[in-house]
Amino acid sequence: MNLLTVDTLEEAREKLISCVKTLPCPTESVTLDRAVHRVLATDVVAQDNIPHFRRSTVDGYAVIASDTQGASESIPTFLTVVEEIHIGKQPTKTIVSGECAYVPTGGMIPSGATAMVMVEYTEQFHDGEIAVYQSVAEGSSIVLVGEDAKINTVLLTKGTILKTAQVGVLAAAGIWSVPVYRPWRISILSTGDELVHPSDTLESAQVRDVNTWALNALASQCQFQVTSHQTIPDHAELLRQELEHAKEESDFVLTSGGSSQGKADLTCQIMDEVCDHGVMTHGLSLKPGKPTILAFDERSKTIMVGLPGHPVASLMVFQSLLVWLWKEYTHQPPAKSFWGFTTTNIPGAPGKTTLIPVKLQLGQEHQYEVTPIFGKSGLINTLVDADGYVMLDRNQEGLQKGAWVEVHLFGV
Amino acid sequence: MNLLTVDTLEEAREKLISCVKTLPCPTESVTLDRAVHRVLATDVVAQDNIPHFRRSTVDGYAVIASDTQGASESIPTFLTVVEEIHIGKQPTKTIVSGECAYVPTGGMIPSGATAMVMVEYTEQFHDGEIAVYQSVAEGSSIVLVGEDAKINTVLLTKGTILKTAQVGVLAAAGIWSVPVYRPWRISILSTGDELVHPSDTLESAQVRDVNTWALNALASQCQFQVTSHQTIPDHAELLRQELEHAKEESDFVLTSGGSSQGKADLTCQIMDEVCDHGVMTHGLSLKPGKPTILAFDERSKTIMVGLPGHPVASLMVFQSLLVWLWKEYTHQPPAKSFWGFTTTNIPGAPGKTTLIPVKLQLGQEHQYEVTPIFGKSGLINTLVDADGYVMLDRNQEGLQKGAWVEVHLFGV
Repeated sequence: MNLLTVDTLEEAREKLISCVKTLPCPTESVTLDRAVHRVLATDVVAQDNIPHFRRSTVDGYAVIASDTQGASESIPTFLTVVEEIHIGKQPTKTIVSGECAYVPTGGMIPSGATAMVMVEYTEQFHDGEIAVYQSVAEGSSIVLVGEDAKINTVLLTKGTILKTAQVGVLAAAGIWSVPVYRPWRISILSTGDELVHPSDTLESAQVRDVNTWALNALASQCQFQVTSHQTIPDHAELLRQELEHAKEESDFVLTSGGSSQGKADLTCQIMDEVCDHGVMTHGLSLKPGKPTILAFDERSKTIMVGLPGHPVASLMVFQSLLVWLWKEYTHQPPAKSFWGFTTTNIPGAPGKTTLIPVKLQLGQEHQYEVTPIFGKSGLINTLVDADGYVMLDRNQEGLQKGAWVEVHLFGV
Repeated sequence: MNLLTVDTLEEAREKLISCVKTLPCPTESVTLDRAVHRVLATDVVAQDNIPHFRRSTVDGYAVIASDTQGASESIPTFLTVVEEIHIGKQPTKTIVSGECAYVPTGGMIPSGATAMVMVEYTEQFHDGEIAVYQSVAEGSSIVLVGEDAKINTVLLTKGTILKTAQVGVLAAAGIWSVPVYRPWRISILSTGDELVHPSDTLESAQVRDVNTWALNALASQCQFQVTSHQTIPDHAELLRQELEHAKEESDFVLTSGGSSQGKADLTCQIMDEVCDHGVMTHGLSLKPGKPTILAFDERSKTIMVGLPGHPVASLMVFQSLLVWLWKEYTHQPPAKSFWGFTTTNIPGAPGKTTLIPVKLQLGQEHQYEVTPIFGKSGLINTLVDADGYVMLDRNQEGLQKGAWVEVHLFGV
């Protein structure tokens, strides 16, 4: 085992980044019908102009703009309709002065034409002529070639989370299948003689396993793939077997439980034996989250994280290490966070990064009021009302009431 | 067909609410391992106290607090260890004055004991005695019965979106399976002779179908269930057949396309024939989003929405009608929105509710700057940079530069 030191959050993050850098960065292809929430693994470049032809944004007549100069309600201009262009079809004629063609919304503008006149500003005559009651400027109601996106420009950059607009742009660009990062495979292993499944009847001193399901939920929120979740009793040999097994099928193995000192030491010792690089962090100067263990097995490319047994602490560590690391690894831009005024003083913990769950409420000036939710870290209920959390740096003494603070969201 | 009027956004919403009120409100059960992002369909009440026994938050000794009065580094108190309590097991002895019992973190406090002393402040002797070097107050390091949640209290209310903390609380309460709203089943039908699948080769005046996939993505973001998505040519009889079919298997049938006036009228006419209650809204005073049609078929309990063909307009209508309606229908609290200062004047459209995509950037004072992204509504690319949208009321003239505005997010 390496020298056992308590790491700062920054030190632990640096160690994780070093491990992750040695890992392959697997990607996979998804089609647009299943791409929502996935993270783009390459820049996407436009293969052609969007649109690739001049398109009308209105129902009306394609004209030469200068032909309409001076046209008005009282003095219309008269033009000959040479063609009715159908949606999806190519025009067959070129417009010359004195001519026009009918084009529906989305239809292709014939060559020669330089503007559209909306049908509302025209009147049709039986002899194939129309009266135009409006003067239009060049380019009116026309989307130009490449106006939505030009050929060879970057449409979306690596690390973009694919949401509705991004899927729309990819569809418009004719990119049906895109490379995205393969989600991390996570094994969750909760340990404790006292733990029973939530659906089981509780006896005397037993408690229901909260961490397995809360961690599973947070992993799902982050789009990770949970490959297995298990609750096992405190048993060294069983833990060793399960860790050995889990490291072969996961990128991350999370254990939780073992907040009791003896159990934490046992988990640490077994992780150190099971991982070829051993334990790299034993204890975090993070509040809550001190009893955190990080280990790395280079052969199987697996990072092991021993999480605290207290549910809130275990979720905070998952958030500030794994969620953070996933965003770094996949080149995601920082998520938008909320900002607001604190309603009370918030004490820091000297030398420790402190994470405080908070509630956001819109105040009178439409600015958020940030109220800390204090509670023993064993109490999951404190998190239910939390909209996010405030992070106090280890060098920060605390926050005065009325301070303007950043509120981070869980799972992003 | 009813009288064809252009509705305000509020009028259209009221009509939708009336339709939805006549619908059954189907729910289904999900287990906690698959509950993330689902919406709770009932209040959830604690069936027992959490925790249901007094629990230690530290490794140490359960004592009678008054026994430690005056104990210090220099003058310890000596106590007899009568039992070592194992995690998950019930104590067998009651503590009386002069006695204590070892309890690990999470272990059950024996009766008689009123506080925990951390192991760090004790010293063990061979004869089953310990020295206690700290005076502890009653209740120290003990979680009381019901301190996390009391029996019969409401843990979570109807309309709660289940995220990590909520899943954790349900696990702690022993509620493995919860009733949630069954997601709406959505059929998407894009119409247009010009439309081709994104993976197909484009010819001359054709365009790729953006709306089907963008709408499918937004529906997925909202956890709706897309039962079918199709692209069909402009053909009245085909449209009628597909609408007849779709209404039997969906709660909502969305068509898009038909921004061209003739096509919009055709869609409107066919929806009116296919739905027993006919078309109830023909045109919205919403910008973008005017060419919107709403129809209702009471027999099959289906709402039909004719969306504009322009991608941005169609997404804005989906957002401001369907996403809004789903939140109302499932009793969700309002989503947290961002607030910031506008960086430019934003013109309104008199008599119309205006939706403007905007970008959020953190300014110097850590307050968001809200920059509108203007663009023709046919251009999907304008949405890629948008973090959300600003909604201007139809009575609002516009916003001055520097106004403090609310920014809504897409899909929530």
